[in-house]
Amino acid sequence: MSPNERLEPFFNPKGIAIVGARSTPGFGMWLPSKLKEKGFGDHLYLVNPKGGKMYDMPVYKKVSEVPNPVELAIVIVPSHAVPGIIVDIGERGIRYVIIMSAGFAEAGPDGKALQDEIQTAKVKYGLRIIGPNCIGLVNNENGFTTAETIDEATFPGNLGIIAQSGVFGNVLLDGLYQKGLYVSKAVTLGNRIDVNESDVLNYLHKDPTTDLIMMYLEGASDGRLLTRTLKNVTRDKPVLVLKSGRTDEGKAATCSHTGSMSGEDHLYESMLAQTGATRADSLEELIQFARAFATQPLPRGNRLGILTSSGSMGTLATDAAIQSGLKIPLLSENTIHKVKDGAPEWMNVKNPLDVGPSDQYLKGFTALMKDPEIDMVISIIASPFLFLREYMKTGSSAHRWFGDLSTIYKQAGKPLLICVVSNSEFVDYFAKDVGNKIPVFNSPEMAAKAMAALWQYKYRRDKRRTEA
Amino acid sequence: MSPNERLEPFFNPKGIAIVGARSTPGFGMWLPSKLKEKGFGDHLYLVNPKGGKMYDMPVYKKVSEVPNPVELAIVIVPSHAVPGIIVDIGERGIRYVIIMSAGFAEAGPDGKALQDEIQTAKVKYGLRIIGPNCIGLVNNENGFTTAETIDEATFPGNLGIIAQSGVFGNVLLDGLYQKGLYVSKAVTLGNRIDVNESDVLNYLHKDPTTDLIMMYLEGASDGRLLTRTLKNVTRDKPVLVLKSGRTDEGKAATCSHTGSMSGEDHLYESMLAQTGATRADSLEELIQFARAFATQPLPRGNRLGILTSSGSMGTLATDAAIQSGLKIPLLSENTIHKVKDGAPEWMNVKNPLDVGPSDQYLKGFTALMKDPEIDMVISIIASPFLFLREYMKTGSSAHRWFGDLSTIYKQAGKPLLICVVSNSEFVDYFAKDVGNKIPVFNSPEMAAKAMAALWQYKYRRDKRRTEA
Repeated sequence: MSPNERLEPFFNPKGIAIVGARSTPGFGMWLPSKLKEKGFGDHLYLVNPKGGKMYDMPVYKKVSEVPNPVELAIVIVPSHAVPGIIVDIGERGIRYVIIMSAGFAEAGPDGKALQDEIQTAKVKYGLRIIGPNCIGLVNNENGFTTAETIDEATFPGNLGIIAQSGVFGNVLLDGLYQKGLYVSKAVTLGNRIDVNESDVLNYLHKDPTTDLIMMYLEGASDGRLLTRTLKNVTRDKPVLVLKSGRTDEGKAATCSHTGSMSGEDHLYESMLAQTGATRADSLEELIQFARAFATQPLPRGNRLGILTSSGSMGTLATDAAIQSGLKIPLLSENTIHKVKDGAPEWMNVKNPLDVGPSDQYLKGFTALMKDPEIDMVISIIASPFLFLREYMKTGSSAHRWFGDLSTIYKQAGKPLLICVVSNSEFVDYFAKDVGNKIPVFNSPEMAAKAMAALWQYKYRRDKRRTEA
Repeated sequence: MSPNERLEPFFNPKGIAIVGARSTPGFGMWLPSKLKEKGFGDHLYLVNPKGGKMYDMPVYKKVSEVPNPVELAIVIVPSHAVPGIIVDIGERGIRYVIIMSAGFAEAGPDGKALQDEIQTAKVKYGLRIIGPNCIGLVNNENGFTTAETIDEATFPGNLGIIAQSGVFGNVLLDGLYQKGLYVSKAVTLGNRIDVNESDVLNYLHKDPTTDLIMMYLEGASDGRLLTRTLKNVTRDKPVLVLKSGRTDEGKAATCSHTGSMSGEDHLYESMLAQTGATRADSLEELIQFARAFATQPLPRGNRLGILTSSGSMGTLATDAAIQSGLKIPLLSENTIHKVKDGAPEWMNVKNPLDVGPSDQYLKGFTALMKDPEIDMVISIIASPFLFLREYMKTGSSAHRWFGDLSTIYKQAGKPLLICVVSNSEFVDYFAKDVGNKIPVFNSPEMAAKAMAALWQYKYRRDKRRTEA
């Protein structure tokens, strides 16, 4: 059995027991109805010492009473009751367990003692455990979920998520679809008594529905293993990492959050660079980088063309691009010639290409997208809203700017990021018009950094492929 | 006459001539109707060689024909015609000129020659000139504007803006009100043939409606003067600076944008630090910092208390705060005691204070706001949207979390920034409920950096006040 086959029952369980099922408000309350809705009702069993009925389903008083088939147990009882329940689960012959309850190593010595008891039972019964102190996982491929997210978050996509923190994973899922990001699988790890980030990285590596992986880490459970795993995974798929616990105070916070030892930040920094993983410096970067990776092809080189209707926005993008390792090459004679055709006298045909309030935007866009000496394009739209509002009334803003965008874009086969700085009404309108295929950023600097992240990943990956 | 009195006619002109008035689409088209709407129609005169009527107003063929009173001329004719017009203006006895036309030093040698001609006329007639290559200014105190912004942008506030680029100023104005920022005066400088950033800084320094100043700079027109001016202004008002042209490529871009010499970035970096100005690293930082400065009192010290419903978000804020020079002190016995009262066993009562899904949020908030050993508070809300949506149905989310927020907040007299990480539906709902008095951030790191900027400004200002 491959390591991935060994994790498969977490993502696609044949029979589920919810231990500590509740109908009162709180975590886990929505779980039975959600799983029934998603088609997992046939072999769904609720356990609660009170017995009776819940959600029109019988409630079993003990784990031992749950009928077959049952492959996975979801545990949401209070922490002090968990060790006993784990023994019940082991005795019942269930091998896969997600412990969502909190109050273990992260909560101090008493919690640590409880966690040790679970560890003993795990070894004794040969269990695989996710958690404790997490919200389990989401598999948007088949609809299985232990996370209480909104339905909009369950639309299947190509982004895999690994989050140490349950709440982190949950709030990410709640909002990512609004940024055009859709999830394949998401796993929250909590205190990682067993399943760790490397296990899930390996799983997502082989998962055909996952194209890129986003990871929030407070500390590696096994640094060497993580290094090896990342090196392996990033040969095929980008891995974006947000690592917290950079400062002593941050480290102390992670310790009381998921019981993690964060380690020295500079070691992580060089480890991540070495492995070809992409480090995000903030939550915002993690999300914005993912939008670029999820939708754009990798660039052939690092030569960026910037098109803008505002010189200052072009300059801000230029500074950020150069500081992130990209090049802003001079434009070729051919491209200059094409853009100058029909351009007003005041226009400087350079890179960044500031077309100002002229009608040359589409011409500039086409020329940069087709120029073989430009590997990637950032297209900035920043014009007075009073004018843009008039264009909005014509019904199609993206077409006004880009013409037959999709054809030019597809033929070019190079990454394109759009940046719109304006009233949010226009940003939303434009983003909707462009669709999710090309991300619309609000920050020229972030667009440049995201483009640089694409290039950096591609460069490191190819270098390591050549060396191997 | 004080320097400020000398600029006053730009902001409050007695009689206005629009030279190059147009009714065809393009820049300047909305200007006559906008000025009439704002009550400046009585002494508004349109000039265009075609004569006739526009906007129900007579059009004068020459500047010399414009009747009195007329104190300010707004020039929007093509660049090649500007030098002649400036002579006409000088001869007519008008002393204040805003040149919005582009195509001067930023466009190459021919444009530079035109700009030199204007310079000669300026000296000969003793003119004061804003521009060329700008959109002039906005005075939300009296409604006078030469910028074609939407009406929502003209609601008067306490933020002064100095932007070298016209488009930059315009798109900023178009969106700032959506972030709770309202403008007192905004000036775009363009190529700065005469009026420069130091002149406007001095004006805004003495302007009673301006509490803080935001500046976008591509290069100082006079570095020593700017240093002296900033030192002076920041004694009383914070000045936030976004300086572009950090890299050679960025410098080249500013040169062809506003004809600026950007200078070495490290010199700007140390100059700005020396003067007590606050440097923003990106457009996003500029805006987010301004939200904190525009609404919050300055902190007494740098001891930050972080309250959160998600451990990971608390950790991210902690790292960013420490890296920006703040302290995350241990909580006092008294505060720990207050928060522990009624708290579940699993809760770690520490700083950052992660109350998780417990009911202790309000208790924690009150304790941190009242703790004399905490100088500033960041309050993070990150909870599953499925739960928050239920709270939204109850009608009042902020009250659910904070109770009588305004009373506690006002009594505490310390800065508070709120950070909500969630589905945008909840973020918007919550922000609306809180109002504009306390900014709601989406990024824990940005909230921490903004808080650090408040502290840094306060610290440097007090240090310089003591030294003086």
